[in-house]
Amino acid sequence: MHSDLRVTFRLQAPNAQKVQLVPGGNDNGLGSGPFEMTKDEKGFWTVTTPPAVPGFHYYWFSVDGLAVNDPNTYTFFGWNKECSGIDIPDPQGDFYQVKDVPHGDLRSRWYYSKTTQSWRHIIVYTPPDYDANPKGRYPVLYLQHGSGESERSWAEQGRVNFILDNLIAAKKARPMIVVLENGMVASKPGAAPGAGGRRNEAFAEVVIQDLIPYIDGAFRTLPDRMNRAIAGLSMGAGQALQIGLSNLDKFAYIGAFSGGGIRNFDLNTSYNGVFRDPAAFNKRVRVLWFGAGSAEAARMTAVKESVEAMNKAGIKAVWFESPGTSHEWQTWRRSLHDFAPRLFQR
Amino acid sequence: MHSDLRVTFRLQAPNAQKVQLVPGGNDNGLGSGPFEMTKDEKGFWTVTTPPAVPGFHYYWFSVDGLAVNDPNTYTFFGWNKECSGIDIPDPQGDFYQVKDVPHGDLRSRWYYSKTTQSWRHIIVYTPPDYDANPKGRYPVLYLQHGSGESERSWAEQGRVNFILDNLIAAKKARPMIVVLENGMVASKPGAAPGAGGRRNEAFAEVVIQDLIPYIDGAFRTLPDRMNRAIAGLSMGAGQALQIGLSNLDKFAYIGAFSGGGIRNFDLNTSYNGVFRDPAAFNKRVRVLWFGAGSAEAARMTAVKESVEAMNKAGIKAVWFESPGTSHEWQTWRRSLHDFAPRLFQR
Repeated sequence: MHSDLRVTFRLQAPNAQKVQLVPGGNDNGLGSGPFEMTKDEKGFWTVTTPPAVPGFHYYWFSVDGLAVNDPNTYTFFGWNKECSGIDIPDPQGDFYQVKDVPHGDLRSRWYYSKTTQSWRHIIVYTPPDYDANPKGRYPVLYLQHGSGESERSWAEQGRVNFILDNLIAAKKARPMIVVLENGMVASKPGAAPGAGGRRNEAFAEVVIQDLIPYIDGAFRTLPDRMNRAIAGLSMGAGQALQIGLSNLDKFAYIGAFSGGGIRNFDLNTSYNGVFRDPAAFNKRVRVLWFGAGSAEAARMTAVKESVEAMNKAGIKAVWFESPGTSHEWQTWRRSLHDFAPRLFQR
Repeated sequence: MHSDLRVTFRLQAPNAQKVQLVPGGNDNGLGSGPFEMTKDEKGFWTVTTPPAVPGFHYYWFSVDGLAVNDPNTYTFFGWNKECSGIDIPDPQGDFYQVKDVPHGDLRSRWYYSKTTQSWRHIIVYTPPDYDANPKGRYPVLYLQHGSGESERSWAEQGRVNFILDNLIAAKKARPMIVVLENGMVASKPGAAPGAGGRRNEAFAEVVIQDLIPYIDGAFRTLPDRMNRAIAGLSMGAGQALQIGLSNLDKFAYIGAFSGGGIRNFDLNTSYNGVFRDPAAFNKRVRVLWFGAGSAEAARMTAVKESVEAMNKAGIKAVWFESPGTSHEWQTWRRSLHDFAPRLFQR
């Protein structure tokens, strides 16, 4: 990584004919590649990108057409596969660094879902004082990843634990439990993950029928709507809105990070008329939050228009914009950092 | 996977000239490859292995000489890099499956090490009743991976949590905390992981000066030698012996899985004479455990000879053999399954 945030990538593949650096997706802060790499006499292929946007970027190499991860990095699940990743430092990125503050746990757990008829792996963040305060009960945020990612994404790419640790230490957010599930639910047991048109409905069943009862039984939660939030990014934003707005007896806080636009927002008909009475809605839904990166504005028109229409109609909806970032994790780290302090305040 | 445990691997790489399936290491239960793959007219390369040994096996492909992971699997850190892995079912493998028993947590934690001058990631297994029993205190097993692996290996490849959950549910092992650290410690701050001749000494400093005090402060442990064990596999077996036998004021149980042979065992001089008085040693060290897979016998001669020499000299040392397995995770899952029930019994 150079001081101007250009990044040089190098891969040894002496027998290859054509090697490219492939950033994951068109919105990638490494640039919109693929970038052609050039070979030296020792068989090393090299390319230097333009200055990169701060934050986490997926990438891989294309070696004679085969997608290959960087052999010298850890990998991260995204794009429905293991991907290499690089994290470009952000001068304002202190909020997601590990610091000398009390740290919560990220707990791997398995629970049985009747809906999917399988054991499911979840990751649960418990706040720093959870163990030392054995009579304490905590509000819960259900926080979802995007399409092609997994329950590990917020823990690894998102750094949810450091963001919460730092906010809690600064008394900017209430100590809370955060639950990470896998939203790529098959439409029926045995089908491929994320397959079929009923994916979001199937995931809603998992959350409402299996996950919430499990969490409220296994952790010391405050098990009521005023202490339960749901949010997600991209595909997960749509899931958060669908699950949240359809279950307002269970959730009072909803966050849609880079997604969840309501096409042709209509006060009377959208989401089965939940918005029809703005005053009642505002009283019931304590936070309705939308956000996106400024560099993904073109993709987020529907979301921003929804928010404007809601606000015009008297629905209190928050709009947040992450400067300079696109459909990537830096937008979502910043989104969580803005969203979490608004939760569970009376 | 075929019913006789042969496994067919397939990779689409139409532009490649030569593709091989590479099992990780000569002791790999997939066979001692590399196995040449053959290409069909659609560009799919295929090979079928001989019947595989039950358990977890690292593998990757060699595509024109470049090591490439299977694009359709999760990856696991081993051989100092991310590797593909396959888990061949074992008819006697029920003990490491997720079952309908109370489950403990695998907790990701970060703590600051003065020795390495860095935040270190650890994974801590807490037993199923840890939360519900807020005054309970628990014994601790420090459990190490092998060379080129990481603190995640026992959680992912080893399934330590399911092995302990099942043993605890059957009342075959005492509820215990298990701590997973990264033994590939640099010989000095800033050096490459695992580099230099002082690796094991540096790791011993981390464990004794930083890790044990942190764990005893952050978790409800029983913080005395009769409630503290250390074990590891391969490189970690050597570390467990070195750290354990040099710190008998801190450990009463030591396990060496597939490693840690003491060359030219001498009652008077080995490990600074710790074995000199067998009766005193047997009283002080409640369990000294060695084991290996029967298929790695040739590599484990030094270990087995050490155990025989110890027993001949009156030192009580356990010898365990995992039938049919080699220097691989199935040996170590079985080793833990034999070792853990022997711990913390009075």
